[in-house]
Amino acid sequence: MIVQKYGGTSVGSAARIRRVCRRIAAAVADGEQVVAVVSAMGHTTDRLIALAESVNPEPPARELDMLVANGETITAPLVAMCLQGMGVPAVSLSGLQAGVRTSAHHSRARIHDIRPDRILQTLEEGKVAVVAGFQGVTEELEVTTLGRGGSDTTAVALAGALRASACEIYTDVDGIYSADPRVVKTARKLSHIRYDEMLELAAAGARVMHPRAVEIGELYDVPIHVRSSFNNRVGTMIVGQVPMEDRQRVRGIAQEKNVAKITVLGVKDRPGVAAAIFEPLGTAGISVDVIVQNVGHSGRTDLTFSVQESDLKAAEKLVRVAAKSVGARKVSSAGGIAKLSIVGTGMLGMPGIAGRMFRALADAGINIEMISTSEIRITCLVSRDQVEKGVRTLHKTFELDV
Amino acid sequence: MIVQKYGGTSVGSAARIRRVCRRIAAAVADGEQVVAVVSAMGHTTDRLIALAESVNPEPPARELDMLVANGETITAPLVAMCLQGMGVPAVSLSGLQAGVRTSAHHSRARIHDIRPDRILQTLEEGKVAVVAGFQGVTEELEVTTLGRGGSDTTAVALAGALRASACEIYTDVDGIYSADPRVVKTARKLSHIRYDEMLELAAAGARVMHPRAVEIGELYDVPIHVRSSFNNRVGTMIVGQVPMEDRQRVRGIAQEKNVAKITVLGVKDRPGVAAAIFEPLGTAGISVDVIVQNVGHSGRTDLTFSVQESDLKAAEKLVRVAAKSVGARKVSSAGGIAKLSIVGTGMLGMPGIAGRMFRALADAGINIEMISTSEIRITCLVSRDQVEKGVRTLHKTFELDV
Repeated sequence: MIVQKYGGTSVGSAARIRRVCRRIAAAVADGEQVVAVVSAMGHTTDRLIALAESVNPEPPARELDMLVANGETITAPLVAMCLQGMGVPAVSLSGLQAGVRTSAHHSRARIHDIRPDRILQTLEEGKVAVVAGFQGVTEELEVTTLGRGGSDTTAVALAGALRASACEIYTDVDGIYSADPRVVKTARKLSHIRYDEMLELAAAGARVMHPRAVEIGELYDVPIHVRSSFNNRVGTMIVGQVPMEDRQRVRGIAQEKNVAKITVLGVKDRPGVAAAIFEPLGTAGISVDVIVQNVGHSGRTDLTFSVQESDLKAAEKLVRVAAKSVGARKVSSAGGIAKLSIVGTGMLGMPGIAGRMFRALADAGINIEMISTSEIRITCLVSRDQVEKGVRTLHKTFELDV
Repeated sequence: MIVQKYGGTSVGSAARIRRVCRRIAAAVADGEQVVAVVSAMGHTTDRLIALAESVNPEPPARELDMLVANGETITAPLVAMCLQGMGVPAVSLSGLQAGVRTSAHHSRARIHDIRPDRILQTLEEGKVAVVAGFQGVTEELEVTTLGRGGSDTTAVALAGALRASACEIYTDVDGIYSADPRVVKTARKLSHIRYDEMLELAAAGARVMHPRAVEIGELYDVPIHVRSSFNNRVGTMIVGQVPMEDRQRVRGIAQEKNVAKITVLGVKDRPGVAAAIFEPLGTAGISVDVIVQNVGHSGRTDLTFSVQESDLKAAEKLVRVAAKSVGARKVSSAGGIAKLSIVGTGMLGMPGIAGRMFRALADAGINIEMISTSEIRITCLVSRDQVEKGVRTLHKTFELDV
């Protein structure tokens, strides 16, 4: 049994739906039991949101979920009827019918539970189950949507609940690359990548898979095959352990351009100051990414952190209020920044990787504004207009070129 | 408590949805508990069907229901969020959430049962319940649609189940007229009409209300107020008993233009002949309307009946086969016919109405090809190019002019 997920681009037109169905039919002909998870066609979700905003500039989340869920429940029956037209028995299922139970957090619900009876019955009848992705229901049968990466999450969660042999994520790229191929011509497609590496790459700006889906894959040990819906090439397997020879030190380079930084200068070095500054941001739904606090002197320190540049204005306003309340000297901010990261489990316990990264950037004339690390990632904040040069430099430095 | 139903034209754009919501808000301000049943916006249903046919020329009914039900589940949250934007608490409900349980006949399901708990809870919370019309679910939670007149049926059935004081059907006409105002300039809007009169008028060609909804209204004694969504004028009340002074002999004139006739000549006058001819038509889903069989002579008779002209070709083919099997002499057919009917409970036990009708048509030079009657209706089949003249003639004859 396999779960296949087709994104909005893959089902963006009648012709593309037919192509998707030929692919599903081929899997059925190979003897597979197939669960196909589908997204809304092309820009349907955006159009529904625009419609909502035309009747209410701030549409309430519960009603917005009821509305946008239609995107996926339009695609699913189209795919099912197209399959039937090709002689492949198929049944479409809404999130409710597929047994996807979620929390009641509208527009960002979390899957609590999958009750796969109806899907299993459909498969036992020899039919393809075509499931509307991105949606579920609460215990009270309220319609919810899963937020960003929702259909991927549906697919991987179903694969976990059904103990499918794999979850195939069909998308508009060929797989996971050692760097963005639009930036680095010599980028290599990875045949395998570990869940944790993929999570770090996604957090560092690689947009192919949303971290939530990868986390569920890791939790239920579901192999995730990221591949193109436009060709038959093998893509990238996201798995728990990669083959030995793939365990090189650095696996991928990622960049993220929508970054700005805020610095609070002369903060008193005492408990509660950081909380006073970051709590209002969390309440306002503003994500803070890299945080650096220098060692202080004479009882004061400087605190710098990054936010999405699109959140900068709102964030700065909140921070100025908070900074005043904790007696900070000054708040400054700057946009035009980017994150540049190297990721790889092979880095663990390999000294010298960080030094090599900083040296290569320095030799390329790229100034590092901030540094942040995890066990398997090193991130530098650099000037946005230098980040692509930085990606190419590091790709070469760590011998990732084809 | 009132149920209001807004058709596809009334909710055809964001501006029209806002207008609908202002009307609902006015009812709420008047102290009413409101259940609003809404149809798909404008041509949404047609567009979804076209999309279906682009992936499967003969879309299976179960999947087509899954698909087209989205039309109404798009409108309902838009109306609910628009109301909220105006400060009127509101919740949208799908057919499933509203408790509309139906038979499993996809694309033409019948409502079996309404479980109104969720709607009642919504109303008790002081909120407007905005229900997606035209749809329901089976006991197995399969999505169904109700076929023609579906949203009207949802509205009247909900009004019955909730014991609402009235069901308001908002449409693009001002009410029920004594004749089609496009044909008869002097047609009068009726303040009241009986359920049975409305049923006969609908069967005779008046398209304002679908008979199913009227039947449910009669069964549960729900007063149905047919009125325009584009103005505030009072429309027509469909009720069990009309005020005494409205009980005139003839209440309305209706016409239906898409009519053709088939005649089977020289049929043996013995049991089973009519069944042999009509059974194949029923199996093929072709509705037969007026049927006339003359008194036979020398053991043979002629049988004439009408069908929709759009069904004529298919019907004639079936009838030729059947006619041969029962030894009929000949089959002939003709299109270009129309039905012209007068309807009114006041006709009961009033002799001379039929004679007056036939005389008036004769004086106007209109030939009557067939006649059929019920207790409260007389229908003549006439040439299509004479039917509008006939409507005007009868409107005058029976003193219905303003």
